[in-house]
Amino acid sequence: MILYLNGKFSEFDKIKISPYDRGFLFADGVYEAIRTYHKKLFRHEDHLQRLKRSLNAIRINFNETDTLEKIIYKLIEENKIKNEALIYLQITRGAAFPRTHNFPEEKTSPTVFISVQDLNIKKEEHLKGIKVILQEDVRWLRCDIKSISLLPAVLANQKAVEANAGEAIFVRNGLITEGSRTNFFAVKNNTVFTAPLSNLILDGITRKVVLELCKELEINYREEFIKADDLKTYNEFFITSTAKEITPVVQIDNWKVKENSAGKITGLLLQAFHHKVS
Amino acid sequence: MILYLNGKFSEFDKIKISPYDRGFLFADGVYEAIRTYHKKLFRHEDHLQRLKRSLNAIRINFNETDTLEKIIYKLIEENKIKNEALIYLQITRGAAFPRTHNFPEEKTSPTVFISVQDLNIKKEEHLKGIKVILQEDVRWLRCDIKSISLLPAVLANQKAVEANAGEAIFVRNGLITEGSRTNFFAVKNNTVFTAPLSNLILDGITRKVVLELCKELEINYREEFIKADDLKTYNEFFITSTAKEITPVVQIDNWKVKENSAGKITGLLLQAFHHKVS
Repeated sequence: MILYLNGKFSEFDKIKISPYDRGFLFADGVYEAIRTYHKKLFRHEDHLQRLKRSLNAIRINFNETDTLEKIIYKLIEENKIKNEALIYLQITRGAAFPRTHNFPEEKTSPTVFISVQDLNIKKEEHLKGIKVILQEDVRWLRCDIKSISLLPAVLANQKAVEANAGEAIFVRNGLITEGSRTNFFAVKNNTVFTAPLSNLILDGITRKVVLELCKELEINYREEFIKADDLKTYNEFFITSTAKEITPVVQIDNWKVKENSAGKITGLLLQAFHHKVS
Repeated sequence: MILYLNGKFSEFDKIKISPYDRGFLFADGVYEAIRTYHKKLFRHEDHLQRLKRSLNAIRINFNETDTLEKIIYKLIEENKIKNEALIYLQITRGAAFPRTHNFPEEKTSPTVFISVQDLNIKKEEHLKGIKVILQEDVRWLRCDIKSISLLPAVLANQKAVEANAGEAIFVRNGLITEGSRTNFFAVKNNTVFTAPLSNLILDGITRKVVLELCKELEINYREEFIKADDLKTYNEFFITSTAKEITPVVQIDNWKVKENSAGKITGLLLQAFHHKVS
């Protein structure tokens, strides 16, 4: 497996970073996950725009986002990706000694790390749906930044795995924000609901695509918080992400919503999504 | 400079970690900063106990905390530390491929990284005091865990540096929690106030020592939140940490509290602290 780090393409075992990288010491960095359809990057511009917003928000100067596309395609080629590729891209503030909380006094070069792997889509999840669990949202108040400060997402996701669930959905002050690595949607009276954009959620690319599809299909949607206490008043649920696309949710904690299939509106969106990317 | 990583003592340039270390990808780790007085680790047991609590909280299995003391003393010797040492110790969940939010399916060995450096105490800060700035506390709701998920602390601390301040003090819902890397204290009517232990602050070792000193000196203290709006009703302020010990605060944002010196109670505590460690 060939990885990219700071201008070099090297074998997995040869890629090493300094323990003084601020990504390792402070979670001082951001990331993106991008995928291909038909070997082409999907919504590449949206991902790069979001990357730039994340970099600006934490004040990492990196002006070479235009070069990333070429690097990614080279990685796909070097790794002989057979089907579709899942690209992971992380940029940190770089390595600096000594360790100081504030930005290093001497300007550092950002660390740019990119990997690609064969995308392993669990197709049965799209058909049968998944279980999710609810977890208290204890994350920081800048979830709009796609930062690597992911420890709370890790802990919540692990709880999901231990509950045989595919995702943990966060609840803050009684309101559903998003999943540990996905956006969350609910449907009621043929209207699609999802949390509004704010500092509490990530501006998901697939979330955006779904809202575009709602417009195209003339399905009503509202960017409004779903209350955890009101969940049972909705009759369909799904999550979205680059890797999970649109995945129906058929169980929330112990509540079995559906018998292992997508609801009507979810099904329409899934169909339209697959049409769009096919 | 000799560093320690996973059983090996090596030169600075030879110490490298995998980009798949979960510390680098997810901030999935914890740390401690410890110092020596008279070449002996100060409050070593307190630091190790807190380290164990942090490890337990994020469910990293590491049963070798008893071995750390010996490693630290060897590092101090190898690095020929002349005066006192500042020890940095970080433990992450280890490296695992592929990247998954949940804990790796195959058990990983935790990554243990330790460095020591000559402690550079800014003595004039103890005499003249420092300026601090107030910053909104946007951190996660488990600040009792000394995790490496430090991006919000980094951003706040950088703002402090840019305001010619020595520390950023966090305010959550109008209440002062703690500094970006210190605990915060205020004094009113000869009574010392500091935020109570909870999920919102770190159980600082120097904070604990200060409360012990209050008892010894028969100074009243209360573990109660200080309201940001009430700051001007207090007449002394100081911050505490392993590296900053007790440091008087003489300016908060634009408010000049004191003319570059510690207040009466702060002075008594400083004196007693220096007596304790001398």
